[in-house]
Amino acid sequence: MSDAASSSRQQAASTWFAELRDRICAAFETLEDELTGTYCDRAPGRFQRIATERPGGGGGEMAVMRGRVFEKVGINVSTVFGDLSAEQRQLAGGDAGGTQFWASGISLVAHMQSPRVPAVHMNTRHFMTEQSWFGGGADLTPMVEDAADTAAFHAALKQACDRSAADYYPRFKAWCDEYFYLPHRKEARGVGGIFFDRLASGDWQADFAFVRNVGLAFLEVYPRLVRRHMNEPWSTAEREHQLVRRGRYVEFNLLYDRGTAFGLKTGHNIDAVLMSMPPEARWP
Amino acid sequence: MSDAASSSRQQAASTWFAELRDRICAAFETLEDELTGTYCDRAPGRFQRIATERPGGGGGEMAVMRGRVFEKVGINVSTVFGDLSAEQRQLAGGDAGGTQFWASGISLVAHMQSPRVPAVHMNTRHFMTEQSWFGGGADLTPMVEDAADTAAFHAALKQACDRSAADYYPRFKAWCDEYFYLPHRKEARGVGGIFFDRLASGDWQADFAFVRNVGLAFLEVYPRLVRRHMNEPWSTAEREHQLVRRGRYVEFNLLYDRGTAFGLKTGHNIDAVLMSMPPEARWP
Repeated sequence: MSDAASSSRQQAASTWFAELRDRICAAFETLEDELTGTYCDRAPGRFQRIATERPGGGGGEMAVMRGRVFEKVGINVSTVFGDLSAEQRQLAGGDAGGTQFWASGISLVAHMQSPRVPAVHMNTRHFMTEQSWFGGGADLTPMVEDAADTAAFHAALKQACDRSAADYYPRFKAWCDEYFYLPHRKEARGVGGIFFDRLASGDWQADFAFVRNVGLAFLEVYPRLVRRHMNEPWSTAEREHQLVRRGRYVEFNLLYDRGTAFGLKTGHNIDAVLMSMPPEARWP
Repeated sequence: MSDAASSSRQQAASTWFAELRDRICAAFETLEDELTGTYCDRAPGRFQRIATERPGGGGGEMAVMRGRVFEKVGINVSTVFGDLSAEQRQLAGGDAGGTQFWASGISLVAHMQSPRVPAVHMNTRHFMTEQSWFGGGADLTPMVEDAADTAAFHAALKQACDRSAADYYPRFKAWCDEYFYLPHRKEARGVGGIFFDRLASGDWQADFAFVRNVGLAFLEVYPRLVRRHMNEPWSTAEREHQLVRRGRYVEFNLLYDRGTAFGLKTGHNIDAVLMSMPPEARWP
């Protein structure tokens, strides 16, 4: 592929990630405005944006909101490039070929005030070395499982998958269950969703359309789940349980998450890499 | 060395670790009784002991206290043995020789109610494969550094080291500074102390005496530092700062600590391995 074609794909992908970020920020701020339950006496949260630079090439923007519905939500978009060490190649998902890389993506983690509202993670990214591929996914972490939420979340992602290929949803759901698993506790991080990596079907436009659909599915379904629960009152015991569950989230991210490890090793902005950490967690 | 000689050393070491645990528990409960500052209206804490078993061989005892001075302190003693996989050999500190291991030790982490009182970690252990060695150390994590505390803590450990060899303190202090370092944040976990591993001078009795002296130095100095600060009032801002510093403690333990990784991989009781986690931490 020509440099011009590569460059145009890079441009299209990074523009989409930023656009998706803008639409999610707007949707989440609307939720902040709509709150009538606990903490409705507080001012609705608003995102703040902070530019980040990566020594070695590129940078990004963190959008962070500490609100009355969203206790802490971080949405990072970044486009980074440079030399890829052998170790980083490993962390990025095997031998990627080449020693130069370009990567752009959006990564979101939301920790909610209410233990009745599930926490969520969504990430899509485009990676180029001598090869090029997409990766990403979305997964839900309720503090107390709600079967209707789980079904709605999976249905939205399945619909996005089914528009591309019939085998995507079952494969990517299984991959998610395998990835978001804490072996030391023998438990899943949440109720899953989808996870995929090194997606390169041979049709770049189709792959990019799939990645956009995953983002749009998230944008449609998650605010719906938040709205369903955000005005319900909760108990101190439920909050305590939430803080303990968040401890598991910390354990997963620091012990197992490849994205976190990649971010820490590539020396990207630490606040951006650790944006996924919950605002408060307990190990009682 | 004969099996009988090995067995007698194992017995001596594991007996010492349990005795040291008993003495530390008594000293910490006395501190709970002496509190006259914040939370003195609460009942003084008392240790609870829980036996743990390790699938594959051995087990231990967790002593845990959730008190009014000690927000959460865990003291684990364990004696474990069995087959050592190649991966575990690596985690245990390089190629240890042999595929059978025996390990006994005491490990302590204290997270304090008051942000004026430093958190602390102490661990000593005896490890046997075809070779045998000691490891351990103690390090202090103040939330706000106090030069007098740092000096007193280091002086006590230096004195213990100097009774054995003049080069122990400078070597083991430097090792501690290197070990308890968070590269992703480019900061030390605390103000250090000593750290040593694979100590096998050729004189087992001398090495064992050194390890006992480290434990006794800890037992003497740490309660002194607690007593110095535990009745001082503190502000909400200091407490908030403490919770953020505890987040760094979590990051270190899950990202870098070899003992935690060893515990999780060898399948020892998860609550015992993660006893070092703070009761509450924040990533604001």
